[in-house]
Amino acid sequence: MTKLWNKGYDVNKEVEKYLAGDSWGDQQMVKHECIASIAHGMMLNKIGILNDNEIKSIKKVLVEIIELDKNNKFIITPQDEDVHTKVENYLTSKLGDVGKKIHTYRSRNDQLLVNPRLYNKEKLLSIEQKLLNLIKSLINLAKSNKNIPMPGYTHRQKAMLSSIGLWIGAYAESFMDDFEVLSKAYELNDQNPLGSAASFGVPKNIDREFTTKLMGFSKTQKNTLYCQNSRGKIESIIVSALSQIMITIGKLSADLILFSTNEFGYIKLGNEVSTGSSIMPQKRNPDVPELMKGNVSIVLGYENIIKNAIKDLPSGYNKESQVVKEHTIKSILLTMDSIDMMQICIDTLTINDEICKKSCTKELFATDLAYDLVDQGIPFREAYNKIASEIDSIEVPDLNEAIKKRCHIGAPGNLGLDKLSKNIELKENELNKKKKFFENSIKKLLE
Amino acid sequence: MTKLWNKGYDVNKEVEKYLAGDSWGDQQMVKHECIASIAHGMMLNKIGILNDNEIKSIKKVLVEIIELDKNNKFIITPQDEDVHTKVENYLTSKLGDVGKKIHTYRSRNDQLLVNPRLYNKEKLLSIEQKLLNLIKSLINLAKSNKNIPMPGYTHRQKAMLSSIGLWIGAYAESFMDDFEVLSKAYELNDQNPLGSAASFGVPKNIDREFTTKLMGFSKTQKNTLYCQNSRGKIESIIVSALSQIMITIGKLSADLILFSTNEFGYIKLGNEVSTGSSIMPQKRNPDVPELMKGNVSIVLGYENIIKNAIKDLPSGYNKESQVVKEHTIKSILLTMDSIDMMQICIDTLTINDEICKKSCTKELFATDLAYDLVDQGIPFREAYNKIASEIDSIEVPDLNEAIKKRCHIGAPGNLGLDKLSKNIELKENELNKKKKFFENSIKKLLE
Amino acid sequence: MTKLWNKGYDVNKEVEKYLAGDSWGDQQMVKHECIASIAHGMMLNKIGILNDNEIKSIKKVLVEIIELDKNNKFIITPQDEDVHTKVENYLTSKLGDVGKKIHTYRSRNDQLLVNPRLYNKEKLLSIEQKLLNLIKSLINLAKSNKNIPMPGYTHRQKAMLSSIGLWIGAYAESFMDDFEVLSKAYELNDQNPLGSAASFGVPKNIDREFTTKLMGFSKTQKNTLYCQNSRGKIESIIVSALSQIMITIGKLSADLILFSTNEFGYIKLGNEVSTGSSIMPQKRNPDVPELMKGNVSIVLGYENIIKNAIKDLPSGYNKESQVVKEHTIKSILLTMDSIDMMQICIDTLTINDEICKKSCTKELFATDLAYDLVDQGIPFREAYNKIASEIDSIEVPDLNEAIKKRCHIGAPGNLGLDKLSKNIELKENELNKKKKFFENSIKKLLE
Amino acid sequence: MTKLWNKGYDVNKEVEKYLAGDSWGDQQMVKHECIASIAHGMMLNKIGILNDNEIKSIKKVLVEIIELDKNNKFIITPQDEDVHTKVENYLTSKLGDVGKKIHTYRSRNDQLLVNPRLYNKEKLLSIEQKLLNLIKSLINLAKSNKNIPMPGYTHRQKAMLSSIGLWIGAYAESFMDDFEVLSKAYELNDQNPLGSAASFGVPKNIDREFTTKLMGFSKTQKNTLYCQNSRGKIESIIVSALSQIMITIGKLSADLILFSTNEFGYIKLGNEVSTGSSIMPQKRNPDVPELMKGNVSIVLGYENIIKNAIKDLPSGYNKESQVVKEHTIKSILLTMDSIDMMQICIDTLTINDEICKKSCTKELFATDLAYDLVDQGIPFREAYNKIASEIDSIEVPDLNEAIKKRCHIGAPGNLGLDKLSKNIELKENELNKKKKFFENSIKKLLE
Repeated sequence: MTKLWNKGYDVNKEVEKYLAGDSWGDQQMVKHECIASIAHGMMLNKIGILNDNEIKSIKKVLVEIIELDKNNKFIITPQDEDVHTKVENYLTSKLGDVGKKIHTYRSRNDQLLVNPRLYNKEKLLSIEQKLLNLIKSLINLAKSNKNIPMPGYTHRQKAMLSSIGLWIGAYAESFMDDFEVLSKAYELNDQNPLGSAASFGVPKNIDREFTTKLMGFSKTQKNTLYCQNSRGKIESIIVSALSQIMITIGKLSADLILFSTNEFGYIKLGNEVSTGSSIMPQKRNPDVPELMKGNVSIVLGYENIIKNAIKDLPSGYNKESQVVKEHTIKSILLTMDSIDMMQICIDTLTINDEICKKSCTKELFATDLAYDLVDQGIPFREAYNKIASEIDSIEVPDLNEAIKKRCHIGAPGNLGLDKLSKNIELKENELNKKKKFFENSIKKLLE
Repeated sequence: MTKLWNKGYDVNKEVEKYLAGDSWGDQQMVKHECIASIAHGMMLNKIGILNDNEIKSIKKVLVEIIELDKNNKFIITPQDEDVHTKVENYLTSKLGDVGKKIHTYRSRNDQLLVNPRLYNKEKLLSIEQKLLNLIKSLINLAKSNKNIPMPGYTHRQKAMLSSIGLWIGAYAESFMDDFEVLSKAYELNDQNPLGSAASFGVPKNIDREFTTKLMGFSKTQKNTLYCQNSRGKIESIIVSALSQIMITIGKLSADLILFSTNEFGYIKLGNEVSTGSSIMPQKRNPDVPELMKGNVSIVLGYENIIKNAIKDLPSGYNKESQVVKEHTIKSILLTMDSIDMMQICIDTLTINDEICKKSCTKELFATDLAYDLVDQGIPFREAYNKIASEIDSIEVPDLNEAIKKRCHIGAPGNLGLDKLSKNIELKENELNKKKKFFENSIKKLLE
Repeated sequence: MTKLWNKGYDVNKEVEKYLAGDSWGDQQMVKHECIASIAHGMMLNKIGILNDNEIKSIKKVLVEIIELDKNNKFIITPQDEDVHTKVENYLTSKLGDVGKKIHTYRSRNDQLLVNPRLYNKEKLLSIEQKLLNLIKSLINLAKSNKNIPMPGYTHRQKAMLSSIGLWIGAYAESFMDDFEVLSKAYELNDQNPLGSAASFGVPKNIDREFTTKLMGFSKTQKNTLYCQNSRGKIESIIVSALSQIMITIGKLSADLILFSTNEFGYIKLGNEVSTGSSIMPQKRNPDVPELMKGNVSIVLGYENIIKNAIKDLPSGYNKESQVVKEHTIKSILLTMDSIDMMQICIDTLTINDEICKKSCTKELFATDLAYDLVDQGIPFREAYNKIASEIDSIEVPDLNEAIKKRCHIGAPGNLGLDKLSKNIELKENELNKKKKFFENSIKKLLE
Repeated sequence: MTKLWNKGYDVNKEVEKYLAGDSWGDQQMVKHECIASIAHGMMLNKIGILNDNEIKSIKKVLVEIIELDKNNKFIITPQDEDVHTKVENYLTSKLGDVGKKIHTYRSRNDQLLVNPRLYNKEKLLSIEQKLLNLIKSLINLAKSNKNIPMPGYTHRQKAMLSSIGLWIGAYAESFMDDFEVLSKAYELNDQNPLGSAASFGVPKNIDREFTTKLMGFSKTQKNTLYCQNSRGKIESIIVSALSQIMITIGKLSADLILFSTNEFGYIKLGNEVSTGSSIMPQKRNPDVPELMKGNVSIVLGYENIIKNAIKDLPSGYNKESQVVKEHTIKSILLTMDSIDMMQICIDTLTINDEICKKSCTKELFATDLAYDLVDQGIPFREAYNKIASEIDSIEVPDLNEAIKKRCHIGAPGNLGLDKLSKNIELKENELNKKKKFFENSIKKLLE
């Protein structure tokens, strides 16, 4: 199979393998390669490079490839070099010279840039949806347990009265902030780089806005050199957004692990997310939360890799940026899977009401009493010292009442979940609009 | 000086020093401590804990502290423990019991959370402005050099015709994307956590929305446990946004360094940003771009520190998060200074037209010729091979014309800078609104 | 296939997949699993748990598996769970109850610990050899070009006279330091953890020193809890050592890229390590050095992942540590391949003597002249200022003589390569001893 | 004050500040600057550049500076530029032209390289000693509690019988491995770079081996370009070694925090390392272990910064490497302080025997019983299943006996601490030799 840059000498096999990049990553992007090629072809047709018959037959073959790929019948092997060569060779084998024309006014760099953008759009939309679903589950869990008291901890030491509702609600709000960060990353990725060629445009009047519309992008990424320079940069913004989701997952996992120990015991993890031991029959291990927690480090590390690989490359394409793709795709998939796992954890979580209540011991209420003295006009510092000296005589109050007394916004007695739910509704509507716009564009393109 | 948590035993001096955190960081936040304290006090007044005289005298002393600090006369020493204790002690020394009352329904955690948010708001607004200024300078530089040709590079090898306009314009667009990321970080930081107390709210009807309005926040951060859990998380979102600015600065620095070598010579750096050598009289070193480039690693590393320090802490306050503050402030200041430095670099940059033109040698135009053959109906792959075999006979075309021919959006002949300028105007208006809203709120608060 | 920890409920398929770890990593360790199992079995035989016939038949089957694996006929699929289950199931299917006995006094944790140690030993020995080979090539290249002058750079600006010999020799010495770090990592990995069971040992008198000897380890890792706690720690020491090799490779790559640009032109990279462009016929891109440079970030990122995943886990096995294996193996293989690539780069490098010489322009000799004034009794600072004012009248001296004058140890005229060669000889002898000891132990074990 | 590289134009103040580096870091190295200057001067005297009177008076002034610095009377301000300029200016002001001569055949790069090496040697020797002291304390603690049983955990779930001795002993062995890594870092730092000048040596016969001996280095770092290239590399090896110590400290801190919660309660932290809360009188927070744990991220992040800042710089001095010094010194000091803190934690730790014993519940002994069945000839897998089905009827055995039965090397009943102690003795002897050799050299130099 002929390599596009063949110069007549044999490149050492080992070197070839070292340079090859991951055909696994390329396999994920067969569909996007075809979509971008159709868009480019339709543009070439519009400006008179391809006639109507030519674009029709090219489109037919590319749609065919998408179908083959759907059925795992378009496999990229190391011998194929990569998805670009594989698709071009397939086109040429079917259409001869016509197949070759698709490469007009386009560079491999173009393809390397636009494919991941399409892939990322698809995946980020899916992650946004999963995230909203998870938040809704957390809100439900928080609501149905809003009156279950539990000790609130600082420094891993019992501090004050909290509640299951407050605890779980905290994560709903945290994931909502993550959603915001992710949406911005989506927006920045939603720029069409096609037409930048090898970074410097082409000396012809190609119509970049046209392909932008065809592929359902919101915007054309203009400066052709910046298109190239943004490789890895856009990805690092995406992975950075994913890292925030993972950090929230990691923190919640840490809580799940700690609160499900025998020693704490506030919750019980579902059978689905815990496993046994080969040598200790009695064990029930929180494997899934542990691994989610471990996987946070992976996404953080991949973000570090991407940023450090591109951070001081001179402008224009440089081969160093090859490390970006694999670590971006893997971060996306790992985050996606981790949200799924957290969804299962939340769906199968059991709260141990009894232990939660029993653990709300008197020391949690020291500050309440100090505040009561404040109401009697004693400065807080003095009240505090007085209570500190009488700590043993504190009595546990009615827990239900105690929760209700925490009535300002965001406190256990006033979680503010309804407002959050309304915000989610809003975000879901926006998401559906984005999704439809993109899906409809692609559908129309493939018709 | 009495420590707030004093329990009657002497804490080992060395331990105290280890735990102390940076009084330097605290010194930056004297003003914000006072602002948040006034807002809290006014809220306490509103709900009847402080009477009108009390809040009036408290406010007076706090405004006094702000003035002292402005004149570097309110110095926090290690003996003061931190800004919170220092301010409280000052208040108490001036007002006695009344001074102590400000701590009612508030925790040190509250203060630790709200101060940086105010500090960050202030600094991020300033960075946004600096960034827009820099972008405007880049646009001007690109415009006034849009017809200066230069070789475009891929793999550090001459590839195709580029222009100074395209090169510089690429960075204008890149910083614009960074501006977007930064704005989102500003938005997430713009949430008032005051009133979350030690993470679990207080058993009293405090009015958190009131302090939100007083301090010029856009929004109350609701769930009190999430307020605490977001410590470090919000900061990591900020530093992550800063890291994008630094990455663009790093890349532009790499270009400045490379293009100002004797061997390339396309540009000359201003005297202001380059220095000599103690032992080699002939040297002119690109010190500022080099150091900006080195400093990218610092901000990336600090982002890594913050994320990894908080990534799997259980919920509620934990002392590990102490590492956040110093590394956030330093990232903010370093990015701010680096933007200033880049501004100076751009302001003092000279383009060497002659070398730029002379370096546009024939091999840059191989693809142009291949495309001309395409116009004659030859498939690109064939055209490419034909040109490759005749490469020595290529002639350099009229460079001005060659730039003009690259006429699609984003190419050297059609940089799209006007649209970018309009977008900047829009962003500047939004920024001014945000700034005014915040500044007016604070002004009113301090009246 | 029965999972070892089966408890009677169906674990969600998706969860299973999330937890599975990489079967790819496990596939690399089939041999080591068998080796450690034989050693454990022989120890069980020694202490009377397995009789002579039993160990004989177990060993036979395990050796058979090693052979199958060698021929890619022992493939671990996701359905097999992992290498431990797969091997145990195979043993049991062949030997029935006898096969099950191999698990006596051993935990999966044991196997998870000892397999990578054996794998690492093998690979690190190979990397040490490759590194010494590369250093020898560098020394040869430096020697045969020791009198080729070239400009020495600081701040990417021409500074003083250097030589190809000095430039290349610098990397020989750098890799030698890396070798030292790697040897220490080898030493720390060379501790046998087998027998630690699930972290707490077993209530039986197993003979751990015996398996240490059988598997060719230098030392038993004693404290059984530390055996477990060292998971990820030993690996991070290894990857940290690899990162030093990669940093040297990255730096040398940066030089190769810069010095092979048209603008510098001191060297020409071999055809084997550079490729063309699909759209620009004239290009010759330094792909291999670029990618090696990019790959440095991967190994640094993987080191970051491993350290941050384990850095604050409580003692005893925790599932978070699962992220260690994949990133360690990949770091090892990537470093190994990168050394191979650098070897090819060095083997195919051409020095362009003419350009090197021509580029040694007069400004390189300013300091020489200042020193000559020093010899006449003028303080250096004054001499420096004098030369700085007369810089245009400097003449380029005889370059050969100028190199010779730099005659102190380590300078261009006295590179000290012979001493380095002697040190390599020493290290190679030690390496051969380590290798033989290990290989002979394994050979004897498998007999 | 005249800058060494003054060229007649005013460098923008702001730029100067940006470039300045930390005068704080420089202040740490006044002594080392003087030591290296004396050594260089004595070498200049040996080769005839300075006469006996000159070196005598130079030495006198430099020793005077060391004395001033000891009494905090030699303060480097930003106006002084840096330690090199400050010392040179002081020398010149005292000695006139003679003072200027010390700069002969030496570059600022030389000084920038050799000072930190001397500083590092001093500090690493001190860290090695502190580490050995800590290990000895751990061994003592382990020994005196070797028969206190406690549950051993995997996945944070009770798994098997462990002991305080095993738990603490694990950390003694872990720190011992860290000591090995640190020693290798010391060895690599113990190379004298002085005489490399600006990276390319000098055209004079300076005697580098002589200064190596004078300053108590073990070895001369030969290739002068490698001397420069190793900047940041040696430091990253050091910080990487420190990171291992911090990882062990972090892990032990995680245990201390978890085991001192009310819910676990196996240990009580000393008053010295825990503090109270401003709002919750009952709290006792494990501040020191929490902060040590948080500080691990700092050292890991600083390692990341150093490596990523230097990883692909071309050879020769580049300003990017300026970020190395501050982050190295801070890593050294933070690790040193953290070891001190851990020492205090261990010295003041109390074991709660009662809770430890009480928590050793029956499920810990399931595997023991399975093993007993193995002794009766039942394959382990079957035994395991049998016990799993009868888990409720297990009885807790005599704990003392149970510990004793774990009698193989490294298990709770056979901790192997004596061998460890012997190894420490050995290491301490070596350390004392290194220390004396270095201290005596410096003492002799200053005489």
